[in-house]
Formats: sequence, structure tokens, C-alpha cells
Amino acid sequence: MASQQQKITGAQKLVVAATLTIFTCSQGLLMEASKINGKYEYNSAVVPLFSELVKLILSMILLRRQIKRDTQQTQMTTDLRSVLMFPIPSVIYVMHNNVQFYTMAYVDAATYQILGNLKIVTTGVLFRFALGRMMTRTQWIALLLLTIGATVSQISGCAGETLSAPIAGYLLGILSACLSATAGVYTEFLLKKNNDSLYWQNVQLYAFGVVFNAARLTWDDFFGENKGGNWLFDCTDGFTLITWLIVINFSFSGLFVSWLQKFADTIVKVYATSSAMLLTALLSVSFFGLEPSLQLFLGITIACCSLVLYFMPPDAPKEKSLPTTTSSFISPRGVGQSAGENKLN
Amino acid sequence: MASQQQKITGAQKLVVAATLTIFTCSQGLLMEASKINGKYEYNSAVVPLFSELVKLILSMILLRRQIKRDTQQTQMTTDLRSVLMFPIPSVIYVMHNNVQFYTMAYVDAATYQILGNLKIVTTGVLFRFALGRMMTRTQWIALLLLTIGATVSQISGCAGETLSAPIAGYLLGILSACLSATAGVYTEFLLKKNNDSLYWQNVQLYAFGVVFNAARLTWDDFFGENKGGNWLFDCTDGFTLITWLIVINFSFSGLFVSWLQKFADTIVKVYATSSAMLLTALLSVSFFGLEPSLQLFLGITIACCSLVLYFMPPDAPKEKSLPTTTSSFISPRGVGQSAGENKLN
Repeated sequence: MASQQQKITGAQKLVVAATLTIFTCSQGLLMEASKINGKYEYNSAVVPLFSELVKLILSMILLRRQIKRDTQQTQMTTDLRSVLMFPIPSVIYVMHNNVQFYTMAYVDAATYQILGNLKIVTTGVLFRFALGRMMTRTQWIALLLLTIGATVSQISGCAGETLSAPIAGYLLGILSACLSATAGVYTEFLLKKNNDSLYWQNVQLYAFGVVFNAARLTWDDFFGENKGGNWLFDCTDGFTLITWLIVINFSFSGLFVSWLQKFADTIVKVYATSSAMLLTALLSVSFFGLEPSLQLFLGITIACCSLVLYFMPPDAPKEKSLPTTTSSFISPRGVGQSAGENKLN
Repeated sequence: MASQQQKITGAQKLVVAATLTIFTCSQGLLMEASKINGKYEYNSAVVPLFSELVKLILSMILLRRQIKRDTQQTQMTTDLRSVLMFPIPSVIYVMHNNVQFYTMAYVDAATYQILGNLKIVTTGVLFRFALGRMMTRTQWIALLLLTIGATVSQISGCAGETLSAPIAGYLLGILSACLSATAGVYTEFLLKKNNDSLYWQNVQLYAFGVVFNAARLTWDDFFGENKGGNWLFDCTDGFTLITWLIVINFSFSGLFVSWLQKFADTIVKVYATSSAMLLTALLSVSFFGLEPSLQLFLGITIACCSLVLYFMPPDAPKEKSLPTTTSSFISPRGVGQSAGENKLN
């Protein structure tokens, strides 16, 4: 069954990552466009439920087709211990949503957005230490730069940008970043732990996703935003064509993410979604007539540098065959005689 | 005579570069501290003349000592063709000063400061193509990041930061960056073109420096800022202890720069002065009671990443022996199996 992974080429991964970037980017634009007089006329908590449902149905259809085509090749682990690992991402997301809610009580919207970038670094840390994947020093720097690039693009500049929220706000922001990273890295672990069919794994993930989202809406009916309502009756109120497009978009984005986590990895997902964030900001400039800022331009350049550093193998200097061992920190003959790690480490 | 260069160790270069950073940093702080009621009470054009003089005298003393100690080892090229190459850096600096003057007529102070960072990139380009030094792709990215880091730290954010100056302003800014880079790279070429004693080379450089600075002051007496004055009589008016400290500081900074250009290279100088700029901004926060900004913090982090990327040799991924040739863009097993250059190039 290892053949399933080997059939996936680098080009396919690149195409899926690029498609995810475009979908995530249009998500932001669609959500902005779906506002009427600056607010959502529909119950925005219903959108994730519907998209989980669409993903579940699509995964079931795909799984059925796969089984029909080749029963032998479709591996499905159905023992309870394995199945019960699949609600865990949903549980983490519920915790994450709650922590986000409390974070926003302590920090302003701009700081909240900036703290959100910490999940890039926490994902790297968990990727390395929980999944045990190796990263070069250059790749660590690349992840740090991606975080900074995203942050730079979000700086509005005018005062109040001095990180002056109470310490509890920052701690909650860090906790939120850790939970977000845990969900991503755990899902990757779950999808890669055996050679089960991705469709079967998705069916389990999304079935629990539907249950947890429905539970959330029911909770809201009793204690939360929609107090006294009944979401089963009014859940599509205010839905327009754009809202349905958002549901479809969320569904496909989710399927692409799970494909990338199975066949590529969580860091690729992080790059796709971060690039989408910057692309959205760039497109917003033309779509919604905003002023293009120097910060956005610098942030995008930093992110591009990060992308190159992370995914491209280091090239050896032309003058020497191997740059790893050397004696002098700064060479008098220029860069070709590369620098000594021992001096600054 | 090649032995002269080989005697210099990496640790010595690091020490000189670090000292230059500290001197350049205190330059900024001293100049800020020398202002009385927000402006300079002394003729600020006299400071470079005095520091050229100090450098000239020190270099002559050091040269004399070197000759006394070891006449054979002190190589001095004295033919006219060689000597006449030494006023060229001074000529370039005069042109540079004039272009800077015109640039400021087109762009505001903040944009002017940001455009100044372009000299990092132009220095890299000239270093590569005029001096023919090799740089790896990672080192190019590092230089770009240093430019961005410096820029990020200078963003004030509040509107007007949208690069909205007239195109002539940008062209002059680019020309200024090219002239600045040319002066640096040409001086490196001059100091390295033979194994002449650095002290003898400095004597020539600073002698012409004194001449050009005196000419500039004389020009100002007739046509410029000091119209109708006579700098020979009033040149130390308004000088305080701090002003003399600035002169001493400029002198030693200049000597360190020329040492680095002879025994290390111009890029090391660029890193030292850019680090000094960021360090100055950081110290200004505590010395002059300014608010520490997120931008400054991000800019410093980017500059540190750049420093590591430029001077540390790339480390090979742990799982494979050599990361240079590969097939897949994004490996399903994580980062260790590094990425395919062919996919994104």
C-alpha cells in the first residue's frame, strides 16, 4: 500500500497547494463580499456545518467508488480504537474556538490578527518535535521569516502597535497558536499513521465534524448567540448565492488540506494558507479600492524569500565544492570561501 | 607579501566588524546628543574635514612606524598612475552628496531614509558583477532581507508611506544608492589591487579626502551654506567636547572601514553599518525615551536572520547526504527529503 504515496508526484502536490492558495484567497474575498451593510445577514456558524456535510457526502461517494473499483486496494481500519482517534481534531478545534473567544476579550483586533501568525512557528516546533521531522537551520529561519512577513503586512503603524495588551492576552494568544498547531500536526499524524484510504479517513473526520458543529449550534440555541432559536428551522435564513459559494469553497479547501496533510505535509499547508492571506490583502487593494501599503509589499517580499529558502535546496558556492567545513569567519577573498559556523554559533 | 592577508584571522575580522558596529552606533547617539535645542550649533561640514585630518595623521604615524620596523616588508607603490586612482572615491562622494541634495528636494525625509537602504542591494550587485565575487542564492536573499529589515524598522506607518513621491525622486534615490555602492566597492578594489601597506594606501586616500573636504568648505564660503564666511577662521565655533568625540569617532570608524575593506570585504562593512543603524534605533528607545515599536523589533529580527543566512554555511539535511539533486517538490515524508529546484525555478 505504500505505492499509494509513491504515485503522487511533486508536480501534483504543487498544483494542489496552488489550488488551495487560490481557494483560501477567494474565501476571504467571498466572505467580504457576502456582508450586507458591513455585517453577515446569515448565521455564520451554519457555514462550517454545511461544509462538513458536503465534505462528508463527497468523501462517502469517493470511498464507494474506490471500493467498487478495487476492493483489495481500499484499506480501511474499522476497529474502535482507531475510529475514536478521529474526533480528537474536532475536540481541539472546539477548545481553540473557546480560547480565541477569550483572547479577543484581552487584545484588540489588530493584535489578535498579529498573534495569530504565531501558529506558523508553533506548527514548525510541533512538526519537528511531535512528528519528529527534520528541518535544516535555513528552514527554521524560513518559518520565522514567514511569521514576520505575515506580521509586517498586517502592521497598520499608527500608534497602539506597541504590544501593550495585558500579559493574559499574550498567553492566551500563544495557547491559541499551540492548539491550532496541534490540530494540524495531529491530523497529519492521523492521516499518515497507516495506509488507510484517504476517503475512509475523511469520512471519519467529517462525520465527527458534522456532529461537533451540530452540537455547537444546539448549544448556541440554549446558551449562546442564537438563544431561544432553533437552528434546524432557520439555518439557511439570509443565505444568498455567495453564501452557498462560501460553503462550496470551504468544502473543497478542506478536502485539499486533508489531501496535502496525507501526501505532502502540514508545513506545505501553512505556506499555502499564509500565501493566500497575503494574496487576499493584495487583491483587496484592487477589489475594494484600498491604498496599497509599503508594509504589504515588504511582507509579500519576505514571504517569497521564506518560500524560496524553505523549499529550495541550498546551492553550494561556485568556488568551492562543499561549503560545510571552513576556517575563517569573514573571508578576505569574498563570499566564495564561505563563513565559519564555529565563530558565531 | 600575500602573507599579510593570511595572518588575519576570522576572529580578528569579527572583532573589528563588531567594534565598527559599536562606533557607528555611538556616532548616531553622539550626533543626536550634540544638538542644542534640536539643531547643530557648529558647522557640521567641518567634522568630516577634521576626521580626514586625524585619519591622515594617524596613518602617517603608523606608516612611519611600519617602515622603521621593517623596510623590506612595507610595500609602497608610488608611481603617478597608481596614486591618481586614490582621489576617485572622494570624487564619487562629492557626486553622491550632490545627488542626495537633489533627492531630498523630491522626497520627504522618511522616504529618503527608506530609499537609502537600496545601497545594500546595489552594493551586492556591484560586489558580484564589478568585483566578480561569487554569492550563493541564499546570500542574495540575505542581502534582500537586510534591505527589507532596515526598511521595516523605519516604517512609521501613519499614511504617506505609500511610496507616492514623484518618479524623479525614486530615480535620484536609485542613482544615489548606485554611487554609494560604487564608492565602497571601488575602495575595496583599490585596497586589494596590490599588496601595498594599508597605511600607505590610507595616507593617499585621506590626503585626497582632506583636499576635497577643504575644497567643499571653500566652495560653501563662496556659493553655499556659509556664504561670505571664511571657514579657516570660524571652523571650530560652537565645538563642544561631544563634537570632538564625534570627530574622533568618525576617524576610528573610517580606519576600521578601510581595514575591513582590505582584509574582509564591503559586504561585511554593510552588515556592520546596518546593524549599527538598528542598534542605534534600539538604544534611542531607552536613551531618548521613545516608544519601542513592533516595526523595530521585526526589523531587527529580519536583520538577524539575514546575518545568519549570509555568514553561516548552509547545513545539509540530516536524512540525506547531499541536498542538491532531487526529484519531488514537496516530499510526503517531510522536509528531510529536500525540495526540487526544477519545480519552482
